Amino acid sequence: MAEFKAALARAGDVAFAEIETGVRMKAQFADTPIADAMLHAVRGGKTLRGFLVLQGAALHGVNEERAKPVAAAIECIHAYSLVHDDLPCMDDDDLRRGQPTVHRKWDEATAVLAGDALQALAFQMITHAQIEADNKVSLIASLADSAGLNGMVGGQALDIAAETAKEPFGLQQIERLQSGKTGALIEWAAGAGPMMVGADDRPMRDYGRALGQAFQIADDILDIEGDEATVGKAVGKDEDAGKATFVSLLGLDGAKRRADELVESACDALSKYGDDAETLKEAARFVVNRTH
Amino acid sequence: MAEFKAALARAGDVAFAEIETGVRMKAQFADTPIADAMLHAVRGGKTLRGFLVLQGAALHGVNEERAKPVAAAIECIHAYSLVHDDLPCMDDDDLRRGQPTVHRKWDEATAVLAGDALQALAFQMITHAQIEADNKVSLIASLADSAGLNGMVGGQALDIAAETAKEPFGLQQIERLQSGKTGALIEWAAGAGPMMVGADDRPMRDYGRALGQAFQIADDILDIEGDEATVGKAVGKDEDAGKATFVSLLGLDGAKRRADELVESACDALSKYGDDAETLKEAARFVVNRTH
Repeated sequence: MAEFKAALARAGDVAFAEIETGVRMKAQFADTPIADAMLHAVRGGKTLRGFLVLQGAALHGVNEERAKPVAAAIECIHAYSLVHDDLPCMDDDDLRRGQPTVHRKWDEATAVLAGDALQALAFQMITHAQIEADNKVSLIASLADSAGLNGMVGGQALDIAAETAKEPFGLQQIERLQSGKTGALIEWAAGAGPMMVGADDRPMRDYGRALGQAFQIADDILDIEGDEATVGKAVGKDEDAGKATFVSLLGLDGAKRRADELVESACDALSKYGDDAETLKEAARFVVNRTH
Repeated sequence: MAEFKAALARAGDVAFAEIETGVRMKAQFADTPIADAMLHAVRGGKTLRGFLVLQGAALHGVNEERAKPVAAAIECIHAYSLVHDDLPCMDDDDLRRGQPTVHRKWDEATAVLAGDALQALAFQMITHAQIEADNKVSLIASLADSAGLNGMVGGQALDIAAETAKEPFGLQQIERLQSGKTGALIEWAAGAGPMMVGADDRPMRDYGRALGQAFQIADDILDIEGDEATVGKAVGKDEDAGKATFVSLLGLDGAKRRADELVESACDALSKYGDDAETLKEAARFVVNRTH
């Protein structure tokens, strides 16, 4: 677990430094608060997605230097989605990663714009990676699909629909919601490494898909069992809102069992990489045991 | 002028059809309102930016079939920026292109998400163009720059800062604001054609920069002289808000003179294309004489 935690921290440093350079280079409108708001949104994240990119890249012979713009890109997309998701018209959250959300620290317009600029920066970052142009294009096309209407945005919209649905969602709908809202980006991050060299990305994507599901189940468990100070954001919101979650549908024990099974499938998907994938396996075990 | 108007209408049809195909193919979350909101946002636009892409492409031997995803991409970016700009926390507009804005027809969350999905779709569209991968990467990198913190988003942020500035902005600040908020995308659209084949994009960019400035001055004049029914959106807002505009800084006659000079420089920049650029010259003359 020590190796995983070190790699995760390293991914955070690498992605943040890359994003900070990218943001600070854009000095045309440095007298507006947008650059600071973008960096505030990125700072202090877990960087699980950036970690997956760097690990997947390493497994395919792409070193950190070449892969880091891609790790930074997925963290930009993730950060933008949180900024917009926290808006009053969405989840209306005041706290994120233990800090005030962007619209609380600045205002709503700044939050909308900082999120928009982070999304643009993400796609630009990928163009900077030291990989072949064809592979950049594949990464951009698949990231746009994973982040857009067919992925994260679609899942977000379904999540909002769930709040006003006549009946709570069933397991199939919750799985579809998760596959979009959190699953698509995690799966993309896992597949990015092989995509950087045009290799077969299916094993890493299978790993990422299982990991993403396990991650969401763990999140639902934390929403019940976690405390706000440790988690760094409001807890108990889903239960209060009467929303279906993996816990409400499978029960607390059932959800934990399902998460354990998913960790096992995630690790199985990595078999072709042997011992080289040990840190990724640690990551899968970690996400179901995390406290925040 | 007839040729320009026909080409503009054609660009609108081509871009809308391309976007509609792209949106409808993403059927994973078809039970949410996002796809309809995206198409509502795109429908009925002037398609000046898409027109510039197609014209610039034609000047460089790239036919409509190959160029249309790029025309669609810039229209997606433009439409997303309007959806977010119309939000209550930004310009708070109820009317756009004579139709209710997305947050009025649906709600704010749908407007935030539809805008986000349109931005992702824009970058994906470019990956579909039938051009070399290197040129796709250049188009994506420069579009991200023009749409993000160094371009449109930065200009938007400066526009918001102008509202609470202690003193009204001077001409230099208004020019910088314009170069970001509306100029960057128009310049990019003009340069996209040569970029599609890796040709020198400076003449087209010079044309686009002058055209963008002329366009903004005409917009400021319309805000004073236009009526709401013809313009299709609220007018007189800048004057009411006491914001500096090209008209308040140059006077109505001075602004009109400046716009005419810009049209002349825009046309001059196209000299190397000879008669082939006649429709683009018509476009420049049109933007300063338009009534909406």
